Amino acid sequence: MQESQAGIDMISPWRSPLARALHRHRSQPFSRYFQLATVQVDGRPANRTVVFRGFLDNTNQLKIITDTRSQKLEQIHHQPWAEACWYFTETREQFRLAGKLTSIDANYPDSELQKARQFTWQNLSDNARLQFAWPHPNEKRANCEAFSPPSPDPSQALPNFCLLLLDPVKVDHLELRGDPQNRWLYVRDESHNWLTQAVNP
Amino acid sequence: MQESQAGIDMISPWRSPLARALHRHRSQPFSRYFQLATVQVDGRPANRTVVFRGFLDNTNQLKIITDTRSQKLEQIHHQPWAEACWYFTETREQFRLAGKLTSIDANYPDSELQKARQFTWQNLSDNARLQFAWPHPNEKRANCEAFSPPSPDPSQALPNFCLLLLDPVKVDHLELRGDPQNRWLYVRDESHNWLTQAVNP
Repeated sequence: MQESQAGIDMISPWRSPLARALHRHRSQPFSRYFQLATVQVDGRPANRTVVFRGFLDNTNQLKIITDTRSQKLEQIHHQPWAEACWYFTETREQFRLAGKLTSIDANYPDSELQKARQFTWQNLSDNARLQFAWPHPNEKRANCEAFSPPSPDPSQALPNFCLLLLDPVKVDHLELRGDPQNRWLYVRDESHNWLTQAVNP
Repeated sequence: MQESQAGIDMISPWRSPLARALHRHRSQPFSRYFQLATVQVDGRPANRTVVFRGFLDNTNQLKIITDTRSQKLEQIHHQPWAEACWYFTETREQFRLAGKLTSIDANYPDSELQKARQFTWQNLSDNARLQFAWPHPNEKRANCEAFSPPSPDPSQALPNFCLLLLDPVKVDHLELRGDPQNRWLYVRDESHNWLTQAVNP
């Protein structure tokens, strides 16, 4: 599908089966978690669970949040390509979404994306916001009091709050329940057209 | 912990919390699935769901199976490092296991590991074995009959059946339920001693 003249992406064809899977798992909060693989500076892969925060308005880009102090950020600056793996337990289907990540930190120049960053911060739970005021992740365990900082201002994102955007160029959808299993590849070409092909599982 | 003189690894300290998580999710077959990140030849990450097939006897190596025709194999030959991300939905805890992968295919010279490969094949379900007789994965969808081949011999692994072993050198265990969250790092040093440290989540 082509990007429109207004710069608004059409809805990609993989959005429909993904929306259906999310709807069918709406009672399970963990169905909004997926695993995000990146590559470390030393060339080894890294993999962690992240929370899906919806799509950026009028695009097919998935929103994730992170802390600028986390190891992901350094990895992404070095190698922006990532692959999300999203498994849905009830319908037994998997989506693999490969694309580049963009990190929207406090210094990111685009004002629209800066608004999206602030909006995402405002929509977090108090508990989720509090984690950005915790001690430096991955360092030696701090004492208990360090984890009870004053609540951050809900209207103004902390400087270490970062919005990540995953812009898929290839989506691999596998249905284990098919007989035999069904698998589709969606590939975006340089004109932003999506090609869909049924492949062997 | 040190490797004993008999070449048998002691049980690593992260095995105990992992065994507890598996036990507490024993009624959910999908709790034995995790996401395995590898790196492609072009330097981009790949990520997919795999099934945990237990530990190789007397080691801390996780068993996975794959098809030699899958893209993973080429990736692993190029970059053997991988990271597994294993999220447990009920207890809300995550294990990240980083280490090298070894692929035991039909030509692997070690007779003990070849036995382990055959044993793993014999213990698969009929349906799982059948998939190794399916058409080439990831190619254009074959016709329906191609997915109903004769059942493979349960006593003799097909040549494209491959046992993968993940040998963790670093394990990152995060408990989201803690107040605050708890996180431990387990790191194996060159003498195969495991160091355990509590770190900030």
